[in-house]
Amino acid sequence: MYRVDLNSDLGESFGRYTLGNDDQIIPLVSSANVACGFHASDPVVMDQTLAMAAAAGIRVGAHPGYPDLMGFGRRNMTVSPEEAKAYTLYQLGALDGFCRIHGLRMQHVKPHGAFYNMAAKDYTLSRAICEAIKGFDANLIVLALSGGELARAAIDLGLRTAQEAYADRAYEEDGSLVNRKKPGAMITDEDEAIARVLRMVKEQKVTAITGRDIPIRVDSICVHGDGAKALAFVKKIRSVLTAEGVTICPLDEIV
Amino acid sequence: MYRVDLNSDLGESFGRYTLGNDDQIIPLVSSANVACGFHASDPVVMDQTLAMAAAAGIRVGAHPGYPDLMGFGRRNMTVSPEEAKAYTLYQLGALDGFCRIHGLRMQHVKPHGAFYNMAAKDYTLSRAICEAIKGFDANLIVLALSGGELARAAIDLGLRTAQEAYADRAYEEDGSLVNRKKPGAMITDEDEAIARVLRMVKEQKVTAITGRDIPIRVDSICVHGDGAKALAFVKKIRSVLTAEGVTICPLDEIV
Amino acid sequence: MYRVDLNSDLGESFGRYTLGNDDQIIPLVSSANVACGFHASDPVVMDQTLAMAAAAGIRVGAHPGYPDLMGFGRRNMTVSPEEAKAYTLYQLGALDGFCRIHGLRMQHVKPHGAFYNMAAKDYTLSRAICEAIKGFDANLIVLALSGGELARAAIDLGLRTAQEAYADRAYEEDGSLVNRKKPGAMITDEDEAIARVLRMVKEQKVTAITGRDIPIRVDSICVHGDGAKALAFVKKIRSVLTAEGVTICPLDEIV
Amino acid sequence: MYRVDLNSDLGESFGRYTLGNDDQIIPLVSSANVACGFHASDPVVMDQTLAMAAAAGIRVGAHPGYPDLMGFGRRNMTVSPEEAKAYTLYQLGALDGFCRIHGLRMQHVKPHGAFYNMAAKDYTLSRAICEAIKGFDANLIVLALSGGELARAAIDLGLRTAQEAYADRAYEEDGSLVNRKKPGAMITDEDEAIARVLRMVKEQKVTAITGRDIPIRVDSICVHGDGAKALAFVKKIRSVLTAEGVTICPLDEIV
Repeated sequence: MYRVDLNSDLGESFGRYTLGNDDQIIPLVSSANVACGFHASDPVVMDQTLAMAAAAGIRVGAHPGYPDLMGFGRRNMTVSPEEAKAYTLYQLGALDGFCRIHGLRMQHVKPHGAFYNMAAKDYTLSRAICEAIKGFDANLIVLALSGGELARAAIDLGLRTAQEAYADRAYEEDGSLVNRKKPGAMITDEDEAIARVLRMVKEQKVTAITGRDIPIRVDSICVHGDGAKALAFVKKIRSVLTAEGVTICPLDEIV
Repeated sequence: MYRVDLNSDLGESFGRYTLGNDDQIIPLVSSANVACGFHASDPVVMDQTLAMAAAAGIRVGAHPGYPDLMGFGRRNMTVSPEEAKAYTLYQLGALDGFCRIHGLRMQHVKPHGAFYNMAAKDYTLSRAICEAIKGFDANLIVLALSGGELARAAIDLGLRTAQEAYADRAYEEDGSLVNRKKPGAMITDEDEAIARVLRMVKEQKVTAITGRDIPIRVDSICVHGDGAKALAFVKKIRSVLTAEGVTICPLDEIV
Repeated sequence: MYRVDLNSDLGESFGRYTLGNDDQIIPLVSSANVACGFHASDPVVMDQTLAMAAAAGIRVGAHPGYPDLMGFGRRNMTVSPEEAKAYTLYQLGALDGFCRIHGLRMQHVKPHGAFYNMAAKDYTLSRAICEAIKGFDANLIVLALSGGELARAAIDLGLRTAQEAYADRAYEEDGSLVNRKKPGAMITDEDEAIARVLRMVKEQKVTAITGRDIPIRVDSICVHGDGAKALAFVKKIRSVLTAEGVTICPLDEIV
Repeated sequence: MYRVDLNSDLGESFGRYTLGNDDQIIPLVSSANVACGFHASDPVVMDQTLAMAAAAGIRVGAHPGYPDLMGFGRRNMTVSPEEAKAYTLYQLGALDGFCRIHGLRMQHVKPHGAFYNMAAKDYTLSRAICEAIKGFDANLIVLALSGGELARAAIDLGLRTAQEAYADRAYEEDGSLVNRKKPGAMITDEDEAIARVLRMVKEQKVTAITGRDIPIRVDSICVHGDGAKALAFVKKIRSVLTAEGVTICPLDEIV
């Protein structure tokens, strides 16, 4: 009866450089956000990533980023709406080439890094991204930060949206993430993090950093696969969620 | 009754840099080979190029190249078949994103520069390129040098192929182009060049550099749009062909 | 008795792409700001640019930019001070390689585009850039916007600084440039522009947009070489300055 | 009385991507070949690498490569002599910027990957590289494959040269490396590899794959630092060499 998606950023290796443990995290998640060659990845890595995703039977989405390989797409860049739209289209198309040969259908789009963060606060930028998504495939799900501008632009354009939460982050009363620099921004206790996720999924509530309960809609939990500790945490969250009667399933079965 | 396509390399600008006279050459050709961001172009340029092509009603094809912007894709690179396949898929997909929002259907694929030249002589490389094309869209036409390995691989994989000729180049008796360094390699007289094209189209013959007539199949003539002289030549070839009863039409109405 | 430098951004071509009219503008200026491969240029272009500068006997400086070729270094990027310092050092070093083989000594450094604009307003960023400059060669002149943070950081570090003015821009009373979006921001009348430059050089004064005279220090005038009109204007400003007894000479003879 | 240098390729990380164990291998070698941003590395990584080298007191050299980050500089590219010279100068200069702020003096140059392999067989290419090196700093040592064209071009231009050997590779009778695809090409037994190195250093001889002894000049041994096994081997070779009376010292104390 309760359902949630687990999503993770994948396919972030590049040429001679390996990043992440894709082969280990892929079997643990239901949706993969696949880098498209701007902030990370290259065509060969994209091919290999989709081959793994297809073999594991998980859903894939595009993870478009800024054209900043050196900064891993994590640096703010002021691109025009026209550029944002074209960059999104280019990356969606590029990933789709690999979907085709691996018999996959692209499920969703989640902007990466600074593209995601800037979009969450900038409606004009978000609108440009969503126009690209809609023009490319009106059935795609936009995976966005709960309550941000990207979600708003997607809804305005009639796109399906899914909202994600972070197990390891504290929330302000308005539903935004507590800035990483503030004390208490990170939930470091694993059991507490999992208990919070469980409550978000089952009760659609979370305790804000102020101590007050706030409503939250969670379609997907974003998890990380870099390092042994991160992987162990994903396994734990999966097993607790399952034991508590929550079905882990891909986004397109939820929204 | 006689038909031929005119193709030209377009959309080769990049960021602040403008190359070619796309707005002037587009109305004169029937098929555009559009750069995909590896050897030239960027997402904004691709968007603008397809907008112009859509407005002019011409067909578009992908013009994938080596990942060598600094060398404009004209330098030989030894890439593996796996890389060649992935690079082709990535670029086809990227261009397709823009086809979608401009209501266009990709018609053909023509590798660029060194990718084209190396493929023409290397069956393994050509096979990798053609596998990407077939996996992406089995209806795409492979536009190849008449008689080269790319045409052979395309035929082996059951793809539609079109063969192109150059108005300004001399041919050896075996149908290959005379090396540019040999005397007589270039046909510099415009009237002679046009007369040769006309004969290739109508009689499927051309006089080789040895003086002997050889058979040649020509579906498309490759023309250039850089510079006033090149543009004037395209206009002239168009008007002579038309006056001589040759219909200029896109590849997909020919093959 | 009166002296001023004329500086221009040069060497901005890249690979197959040509930008500007370097061969025509080089004989008209006294200092060249040479692109270093991040926002524009490549090693071959740098080599050719310095060859031209050496032949013309003008001074050269580094024109480091953000690593954003697609955006020509004109888009704001949030780089850390550590990154800004390393990017500056890298580009200074790279240009110096070509100075060595052409028997030139690097005279100055002027950040490009968004790097220049962000530095002018951000002391921390400017400080990082100046630390790189000082570490590389403590004799280099920092060419900065009159009154900005880059000039301030350079002075704090004991570097030689030169301040530049724009012939075609209006000034606020505080000495800053009038925002391009405001009416009257651009001085479109050529004679007026030249008269203003002459007064800045001779009287160290300029009439602000408010109508009030303000003091201004001008060591160099930034001129552009793109297009016939721009070139004609540079010739005119040169001839008027010379006729009015102003010697045009490189920065290192002024500061 | 006996002396040899140990060199290793370092500073090959890029942005978010880490490669190698530089902090562990640096204390074990005497000369570092530092990537310069074309095939690997970025300005921040270069800064950090030289900081580590300076702290450890080892010598540094430039490790210029082809502009092919995606292929890690391991793919053959046909660049012109003019391009090869400009690419070398650019990279030498860029690295030198970091040498300056870390109080280091560049000791040597060793081309990377395909640039190294193609140069070893192509005198024209090697000559272009050596002209760049000579123009940049006539005191630099060219570290080359024993007996290849790069060594020949360096000698012809009057540059200091050092020749390197590989502990884990078999040799043909003519002194060239046995092709990796041939049986016996790799020396897999560690003790045998070390014994061979010892003999090369002390007797200037090595047993070729044919069983016959050949003369060999060895100024430096190339070692790798990727992985625990590689690091353990470097430690072992160091301790055996030292125990056998061979002093490990940088190139500039040898040639």
